[in-house]
Amino acid sequence: MARVDQLASERSKAQFDVDEMKIVWAGSRHAFEISDRISRLVASDPAFRKDNRAMLGRKELFKNTLRKAAHAWKRIIELRLTDEEASRLRFYVDEPAFTDLHWGMFIPAIKGQGTDEQQQKWLPLAYKMQIIGCYAQTELGHGSNIQGLETTATFDPQTDEFIIHSPTLTSCKWWPGGLGKVSTHAVVYARLITDGKDYGVNGFIVQLRSLDDHSPLPGITVGDIGMKFGNGAYNSMDNGVLQFDHVRIPRDQMLMRVSQVTREGKFVQSNVPRQLVYGTMVYVRQTIVSDASCALSRAVCIATRYSAVRRQFGSNNDGVETQVIDYKTQQNRLFPLLASAYAFRFVGEWLKWLYMDVTQRLQANDFSTLPEAHACTAGLKSLTTSATADAIEECRKLCGGHGYLCSSGLPELFAVYVPACTYEGDNVVLLLQVARFLMKTVSQLGSGKKPVGTTAYMGRVEHLMQSRCDAQRAEDWLKPSVILEAFEARSARMSVACAQNLAKFANQEEGMPNSALIKVYTRCFAELSANLTEASVAHCQLIVVSKFIEKLQQDIPGKGVKEQLEILCNIYALSLLHKHQGDFLSTGSITSKQASFANDQLRSLYSQVRPNAVALVDAFNYTDHYLGSVLGRYDGNVYPKLYEEAWKDPLNDSVVPDGYHEYIRPLLKQQLRNARL
Amino acid sequence: MARVDQLASERSKAQFDVDEMKIVWAGSRHAFEISDRISRLVASDPAFRKDNRAMLGRKELFKNTLRKAAHAWKRIIELRLTDEEASRLRFYVDEPAFTDLHWGMFIPAIKGQGTDEQQQKWLPLAYKMQIIGCYAQTELGHGSNIQGLETTATFDPQTDEFIIHSPTLTSCKWWPGGLGKVSTHAVVYARLITDGKDYGVNGFIVQLRSLDDHSPLPGITVGDIGMKFGNGAYNSMDNGVLQFDHVRIPRDQMLMRVSQVTREGKFVQSNVPRQLVYGTMVYVRQTIVSDASCALSRAVCIATRYSAVRRQFGSNNDGVETQVIDYKTQQNRLFPLLASAYAFRFVGEWLKWLYMDVTQRLQANDFSTLPEAHACTAGLKSLTTSATADAIEECRKLCGGHGYLCSSGLPELFAVYVPACTYEGDNVVLLLQVARFLMKTVSQLGSGKKPVGTTAYMGRVEHLMQSRCDAQRAEDWLKPSVILEAFEARSARMSVACAQNLAKFANQEEGMPNSALIKVYTRCFAELSANLTEASVAHCQLIVVSKFIEKLQQDIPGKGVKEQLEILCNIYALSLLHKHQGDFLSTGSITSKQASFANDQLRSLYSQVRPNAVALVDAFNYTDHYLGSVLGRYDGNVYPKLYEEAWKDPLNDSVVPDGYHEYIRPLLKQQLRNARL
Repeated sequence: MARVDQLASERSKAQFDVDEMKIVWAGSRHAFEISDRISRLVASDPAFRKDNRAMLGRKELFKNTLRKAAHAWKRIIELRLTDEEASRLRFYVDEPAFTDLHWGMFIPAIKGQGTDEQQQKWLPLAYKMQIIGCYAQTELGHGSNIQGLETTATFDPQTDEFIIHSPTLTSCKWWPGGLGKVSTHAVVYARLITDGKDYGVNGFIVQLRSLDDHSPLPGITVGDIGMKFGNGAYNSMDNGVLQFDHVRIPRDQMLMRVSQVTREGKFVQSNVPRQLVYGTMVYVRQTIVSDASCALSRAVCIATRYSAVRRQFGSNNDGVETQVIDYKTQQNRLFPLLASAYAFRFVGEWLKWLYMDVTQRLQANDFSTLPEAHACTAGLKSLTTSATADAIEECRKLCGGHGYLCSSGLPELFAVYVPACTYEGDNVVLLLQVARFLMKTVSQLGSGKKPVGTTAYMGRVEHLMQSRCDAQRAEDWLKPSVILEAFEARSARMSVACAQNLAKFANQEEGMPNSALIKVYTRCFAELSANLTEASVAHCQLIVVSKFIEKLQQDIPGKGVKEQLEILCNIYALSLLHKHQGDFLSTGSITSKQASFANDQLRSLYSQVRPNAVALVDAFNYTDHYLGSVLGRYDGNVYPKLYEEAWKDPLNDSVVPDGYHEYIRPLLKQQLRNARL
Repeated sequence: MARVDQLASERSKAQFDVDEMKIVWAGSRHAFEISDRISRLVASDPAFRKDNRAMLGRKELFKNTLRKAAHAWKRIIELRLTDEEASRLRFYVDEPAFTDLHWGMFIPAIKGQGTDEQQQKWLPLAYKMQIIGCYAQTELGHGSNIQGLETTATFDPQTDEFIIHSPTLTSCKWWPGGLGKVSTHAVVYARLITDGKDYGVNGFIVQLRSLDDHSPLPGITVGDIGMKFGNGAYNSMDNGVLQFDHVRIPRDQMLMRVSQVTREGKFVQSNVPRQLVYGTMVYVRQTIVSDASCALSRAVCIATRYSAVRRQFGSNNDGVETQVIDYKTQQNRLFPLLASAYAFRFVGEWLKWLYMDVTQRLQANDFSTLPEAHACTAGLKSLTTSATADAIEECRKLCGGHGYLCSSGLPELFAVYVPACTYEGDNVVLLLQVARFLMKTVSQLGSGKKPVGTTAYMGRVEHLMQSRCDAQRAEDWLKPSVILEAFEARSARMSVACAQNLAKFANQEEGMPNSALIKVYTRCFAELSANLTEASVAHCQLIVVSKFIEKLQQDIPGKGVKEQLEILCNIYALSLLHKHQGDFLSTGSITSKQASFANDQLRSLYSQVRPNAVALVDAFNYTDHYLGSVLGRYDGNVYPKLYEEAWKDPLNDSVVPDGYHEYIRPLLKQQLRNARL
């Protein structure tokens, strides 16, 4: 059957080399080739079909996921895929599964926190999946406050064992993925108690289930925590509950790279720097930022293609209705999200570099950039995941009513994405961490200590507090220097204002001892926390804008590619400027007139991006299988496919629905003698 | 079993009379009593149980809904409930069902558009549910643009019949609730064609299914359109697809109150004013605003109670961790939503009055207030539904990880609510309608025509363009006059700025004929549409604020009740002012200093509302059945119930999951001889 491309005319409008853009998006030709090959491999394998997910009951869905995971592993072995290829394959299978935690958390935890000996013992088993592991940290009563975890690991010197125990209901492990039904092992975080003293939270490798028959080991109660948001979505994952009743494990299953307990029960710190933990966090959060650009770009791809297919109202000269993508209200909502997808992609790329840089420095015992790198990744995790969650829902709304159908792919994308705002650091808690770092940076400005990395601009704070924005006309807002300075001024001024407010609060209590001052500061910080999170957001947006601008300074080949990226960069910056106009104006970073120029420029940028929009989402190179959306189909053949999909619903198995005879027919045939009616 | 109230200490803090507030919330003592009685009736009837919804497959869920609808009808008859009571009962059953459309759209359509004769024939059948009807307007290809519908109703004078036909795939009816599996009849909207001429869209009563065996009548293809967003949610509704193949209906099944076709096939307009249609829209949208306050208040109730139960970080003097409701970041997100719930409740109440006022005027042939009432309800529908959808998701996030569990009730509440942003007028399309009305109002200011109702403030536009905000210190922002003037100035200035921009664009093309000018205006309007929607939002927010203030001017009995409402009103207004600071500053309606005062005042208001927060959500008087949330339980007994709920998941039916032997065991037991590993 010939493939009809309803979007061919859109594609012919593109003013740039789409193939080159695909490589820019992928990060390199090598990365593009792997992604391209593996995504087609997955798409062409009927075992990885996922279009029926929304209709499956919990048990069916889960069993189906087990089947896919086993099939994926089989293919990985058969095809002798490299680690990178295997990871891409799991990515394109596109279904949350226990393997995510096994590869993404269990193995890295042992690598990061296990001694060489422990790694040699456990990693080969895990690499071959002869054991399956998960990461049991969060409890029913404690998520963000890890130091408040209640599970205990009490050392028994008599037997040289730890006794793992859940002393309260709220100490149940709760949420760990892969725990509920699959994992044979877990890295369990528990309070280490030895010789009657509590040494805080440490990690322990605990076997949960028999390797023979999969039954839970004695003292272990384990199960699934129940249905979660959305159809399909994370319901393919067995997020679990786990309760310990005095479970004994050998002493050498405590992860001992950083701290140890000796045979005698003595707690010892190793000379491995504790800061290593932050290095791991930089790594995990960097992958989350990269995932954000994936999720966002999928939603934007669906909304953009469908907006070019859908017509409503108006009429061109040929009597056909207007494509909804031609409406300014649609562009004003959609194009900033398209620009954000690219912006997040590039900042994610840069974070990969940052992680490598931090790692190299750590190896050379240079911890100087770690606080800045940590604050920066925490902030970017928060910023990009919040923006992406909102953007997916906005894209769904941009698809009108049909976006509400599961066959649009958007409901599941939203439901499966939103936990990213909570896991690995609640987004608001993270912004407060960034704020704490920013306040510290500001307070040290006078001390001669130069702010580094993404806070380097704070070194020019005196200039930024007084500078006046240069934009005299709309076109001035195309200059990277004008944009950067406005964002820097806004961020610096918001941070300084917060610092001054904090100082003002604290100054009211002069002559107090230091410990009391810290308490006052903590109270003031809490009191002003809403403003502080806004300052953090301003700082993080500046980072994203500046990394996009830096990207543009690189050599970017391909006809028109760089021009398109410049347009997107400007749309990203100016749409933020409009959205946060209040910040820019209240800090005096720009004038109302300049804000109005920026908005005029933004409108004109929308017109420039419009003919390229479909090609810009084609550059993500997503297969129809991965996109999983009737509305986002590459060929734009939306309506016949929507119609076709509808009939697959279980309710359409019979013309007359189950329940008709019991509940509808009696209604229609009733004799209402007794009724008031 | 004794009921433990974990929230008792919170409840003891309340500084106002909760029972009186319950009556304020319900609107009257009468309304309170009915709601209270009916909600308990539903909650205590095991047939209306809904806590297992998320786990049911589509067919089970749907059959369950049929059962509940039949049971509800049985109870309504047995208890001889009044119309009002019956409607409350359906409301508290809290499950989208075909009955919503039967009572909410099918019957009103016949009432509004049918002749007396038609009403006499069809309404008794519908009232007794001897026929079940739905409202078949939206098509696969047309939603917002009703005039673009493609279904045809061609008059055949030979047989005195209309031939209803779907000429294209996109002309399939698509979305109507109750259509897919249940309705025996539908009001179908189709292009009336007689004597070869197209008279536009009209309504027709069409029988779809046999009353004997429920099979579709000849020429009719009908089915369900498939799964929609969320677990449970709207999947209990049979939104349907409907295709006509030359289906014949008698001429007298065209709804003929406004237009008729004679026996000869002549199209005739009756003398019933067409504006009646707008009256109906005012009615429907008013109910949507009222529903918004319900959905929002449910979410806020859950988030508020859970925020008082949940503790994380920090520590009071007693060593217990801090309740998350005590964090300013939590308050800053939660309390504006609590205030919005009340604000939307009161503006909804006022809209009820407005509808009555409009109806009375229409009966007296006074159409003068209709455009204003229409714009106002369109705008408020858009504003309140968008804000509510966002707020539900924000409340979910405020519950941290546990909000992602279906047992929190929030995922389903979100999924079931969001279509309100699209149905009965896409929210952006509605804002553009409001903008059109505002631009017209501004353009007529010079003409001596006085703006009425919610636009009356535009009559003081000269003053508002120059006025300076009076706030000299934070406390000044407690004055209703200061708040109102700031909101009026902002709205007026934004509207005037848009009008000037439109004029500027249009002026570039002087000396053009009128028809060309209209085209230019349309183009400029489209170009500036993003700004125009912002002006509409500003206008609508002003309406909500001013109606809240008006409410406070009424006599409100009960200790402390009025004081609490004043605090909430100020929180609503000042949090909007902060969120839209950019508007207020760029229009010069307030200064940066004043914005900062407002923000200081807002923080202090949060402290005032804090001790009353739980009591303020208790005042909604929701049963645990209706709330449907473990996190929002009245008794705050969250953790044991979460734990209990988890084990009910089908995945926990067996300790070892289905699929273990096929897919997990082989993985664990594999011999990886051929692998690279």
